[in-house]
Amino acid sequence: MVGGAVGLAGAAGAANALRGEPARAAAGATRKVTIYAEALPGGLFGYGLEPGKATVPGPVLEMWEGDTLEITLVNTTNQRLSIHPHGVDYSTESDGSPFNDSFNKPGETRTYTWRSREMFAAEGRRFMPGSAGYWHYHDHAMGTDHGTGGVAKGLYGALIVRRRGDILPEKQFTVVFNDMMINNKMAPNTPMFEANLGQRVEWLAIGHGGTFHTFHLHAHRWADNRTGMLEGPADPSLVIDNKDLNPGSSFGFQVLAGEGVGPGAWMYHCHVQFHSDGGMAGIFLVRNADGSMPPGAEEAIHRFQGHVHSAQHG
Amino acid sequence: MVGGAVGLAGAAGAANALRGEPARAAAGATRKVTIYAEALPGGLFGYGLEPGKATVPGPVLEMWEGDTLEITLVNTTNQRLSIHPHGVDYSTESDGSPFNDSFNKPGETRTYTWRSREMFAAEGRRFMPGSAGYWHYHDHAMGTDHGTGGVAKGLYGALIVRRRGDILPEKQFTVVFNDMMINNKMAPNTPMFEANLGQRVEWLAIGHGGTFHTFHLHAHRWADNRTGMLEGPADPSLVIDNKDLNPGSSFGFQVLAGEGVGPGAWMYHCHVQFHSDGGMAGIFLVRNADGSMPPGAEEAIHRFQGHVHSAQHG
Amino acid sequence: MVGGAVGLAGAAGAANALRGEPARAAAGATRKVTIYAEALPGGLFGYGLEPGKATVPGPVLEMWEGDTLEITLVNTTNQRLSIHPHGVDYSTESDGSPFNDSFNKPGETRTYTWRSREMFAAEGRRFMPGSAGYWHYHDHAMGTDHGTGGVAKGLYGALIVRRRGDILPEKQFTVVFNDMMINNKMAPNTPMFEANLGQRVEWLAIGHGGTFHTFHLHAHRWADNRTGMLEGPADPSLVIDNKDLNPGSSFGFQVLAGEGVGPGAWMYHCHVQFHSDGGMAGIFLVRNADGSMPPGAEEAIHRFQGHVHSAQHG
Repeated sequence: MVGGAVGLAGAAGAANALRGEPARAAAGATRKVTIYAEALPGGLFGYGLEPGKATVPGPVLEMWEGDTLEITLVNTTNQRLSIHPHGVDYSTESDGSPFNDSFNKPGETRTYTWRSREMFAAEGRRFMPGSAGYWHYHDHAMGTDHGTGGVAKGLYGALIVRRRGDILPEKQFTVVFNDMMINNKMAPNTPMFEANLGQRVEWLAIGHGGTFHTFHLHAHRWADNRTGMLEGPADPSLVIDNKDLNPGSSFGFQVLAGEGVGPGAWMYHCHVQFHSDGGMAGIFLVRNADGSMPPGAEEAIHRFQGHVHSAQHG
Repeated sequence: MVGGAVGLAGAAGAANALRGEPARAAAGATRKVTIYAEALPGGLFGYGLEPGKATVPGPVLEMWEGDTLEITLVNTTNQRLSIHPHGVDYSTESDGSPFNDSFNKPGETRTYTWRSREMFAAEGRRFMPGSAGYWHYHDHAMGTDHGTGGVAKGLYGALIVRRRGDILPEKQFTVVFNDMMINNKMAPNTPMFEANLGQRVEWLAIGHGGTFHTFHLHAHRWADNRTGMLEGPADPSLVIDNKDLNPGSSFGFQVLAGEGVGPGAWMYHCHVQFHSDGGMAGIFLVRNADGSMPPGAEEAIHRFQGHVHSAQHG
Repeated sequence: MVGGAVGLAGAAGAANALRGEPARAAAGATRKVTIYAEALPGGLFGYGLEPGKATVPGPVLEMWEGDTLEITLVNTTNQRLSIHPHGVDYSTESDGSPFNDSFNKPGETRTYTWRSREMFAAEGRRFMPGSAGYWHYHDHAMGTDHGTGGVAKGLYGALIVRRRGDILPEKQFTVVFNDMMINNKMAPNTPMFEANLGQRVEWLAIGHGGTFHTFHLHAHRWADNRTGMLEGPADPSLVIDNKDLNPGSSFGFQVLAGEGVGPGAWMYHCHVQFHSDGGMAGIFLVRNADGSMPPGAEEAIHRFQGHVHSAQHG
């Protein structure tokens, strides 16, 4: 998976982190995490959970609906930057925007507090929505007052707020469509995500930059609702395998790797034709249940890596 | 709020207009309204409920599902124009398109009839949808047969069809992303919307023109369904705080101002980075419950107004 | 309707094809169909169910959830091409991508197998989604490894997977927004779809190419869910009449032609202003119940056909 998860040293996975602690016990809990914003090779910047461990995208951050996350952001760079979340609650001090004087000066350390809450009754039978969702976080201060420089250079990551009873995945993949790149890379250097046949895999899709995209995953589909699964036969949600992924938006879903289609090398890509031709494509490698390579997969990967994208023709 | 509401002199609010009349009594009612299309300074055009009172956007028009709206459109300009609604029922005579010979010549007065209906049974357990929704209206005749000139210059507004039992807001804000502008303005001249902490505020978002956008509101979120609220714990709707807002589309939702986050100056903006940098941003000022200014808000507003947008650098 | 349907000689309609066979009996059935990929005049390419009968878009393909479709694709052209479906299950051999060595060489015949399945229980009360939906198929091999050449030239069509109990339409219209064209045509040569007042008409909307669009249909609306109809009063789905239609995405819905608005010539168009002005518009002709022309329709059609689009001004 991409990035480590809150409260874990290393990258054993955010899901396991939550699985580790009974949901009930976690209700209304406050967790503290230190995040390091660092300069990376190639002019990139990243967030990380330990010094020298910054990644693009940053670590997957997770909360149970009702939890609070207290983030101490250490700015190890010589530029102003911040961390701005989507979906959760925060006061203006934690807005992450220069507009609210909420950012880290070069070298500065600053704490941001993100709260979450469960749905609560409105008038009639309706409820005001809680925080549960597949969200994301990003810089809002580097380069411009909207963080255009920081977002372009890799200061972004996934934030998940889970509702009690949500199913936890075995693996997580973060896919960020950022202008004409995926996780600031182009094919054939885009991430190859791997899982074994039947594993429950969670995809975290985030859009950034100034370009519009559509995310398509071959041979898998999901419900266009909060969890990506149907709440039962009466759930009217659309089922899709291609979805708009535009600046500032995010969505997530879980699939059983290769379920109904078998193992193999499957493509994920932007479905805008000249974007996929130009390098916005990657591989979802579904291995056999025992982790061995399925027939044809090696050849497909080789083809992909050898593959000259039209944009590179000239 | 932006614009007055049907049946109200002044701007006391469309919601109150409906609150004034019991829903039952309103069932199937026909309301007549006269709308004046006028030229405005700066080459703009607007719709208004009284002569000389045209605004950009035009007034918020509202109906109970089942109602009919009979609109007498007075064209005070020297150009052909019309009024074309989304979501409601109308015959070809009220289409508002030159294609159906349905428009006002310069100086002409013409009546357009918009009807609405409740859902009705189809085969099986399904229902054909009724008219309830957050819709909009716009010119369909100025400049081109699709009203490109009128829409570009400000001939647009929000239309709401409410279902019996819907919760009425205390305030309404109309936000139109129209090419690279908000309500045909750019920061720092974009509208500053104001509410007191805890007030129920309704946002009406409309997309126009030829550019694609994503609407983001800081520190607030809504359900991506008809009302923006959940119908209960089993409602599978996505909860979002960033949504595509593209030409001809509209959506609406209600939030409790500052709920869970407190008062302050919050930003709303297009999340396409170069659009927000270029001036597609504005302020949602949440005052204290007593209407006084919360700490830091003045400074934020001053920063925003002094703020040089990158697009203006060169 | 556009194109013939699986298992029918001619174009009597896919819906009737399904109506012909009891749903139960169809459960888990395997149907074999031969599709011919052919070069067409004007540099276009199409799929067809009989030699010399290729169309743009290709035939509407339909399955009951649980069925399997075994497609023998005959490539009568001198270029490599394939057929890649959305929404259904297939192994890497039937992926339709050069990446998986799954395509037809010039003149080659190859079989692709598409399976579908019903939703199945996950943990808790949730279900992994089945295949039911308004999907589509397209080339994934001509011109580039993503089929950019084939898609641009007409190798695309609609694929519907129906759930037991779904309502079958009387007519079907396939509308493909492909760059700046509709079904690779521009106004006034875009398709005129015809129905009689009250007929149940199914719209199949597909997006392709490299441009973003919004589909708008005058005087009709639908629920933004799997069927376009509400599952009952508690269904929270948005009701819309304008929807993003972007590369690789598809949706479908049923309307009762002219219901609540009467017969006449209604426009459907991309709501991006310069796209509709440029020719992305067409006519939905709703005739009287007896099939005769309603007043004003002839004039509207004449206006549309005589109509000079701004893009053609030069």
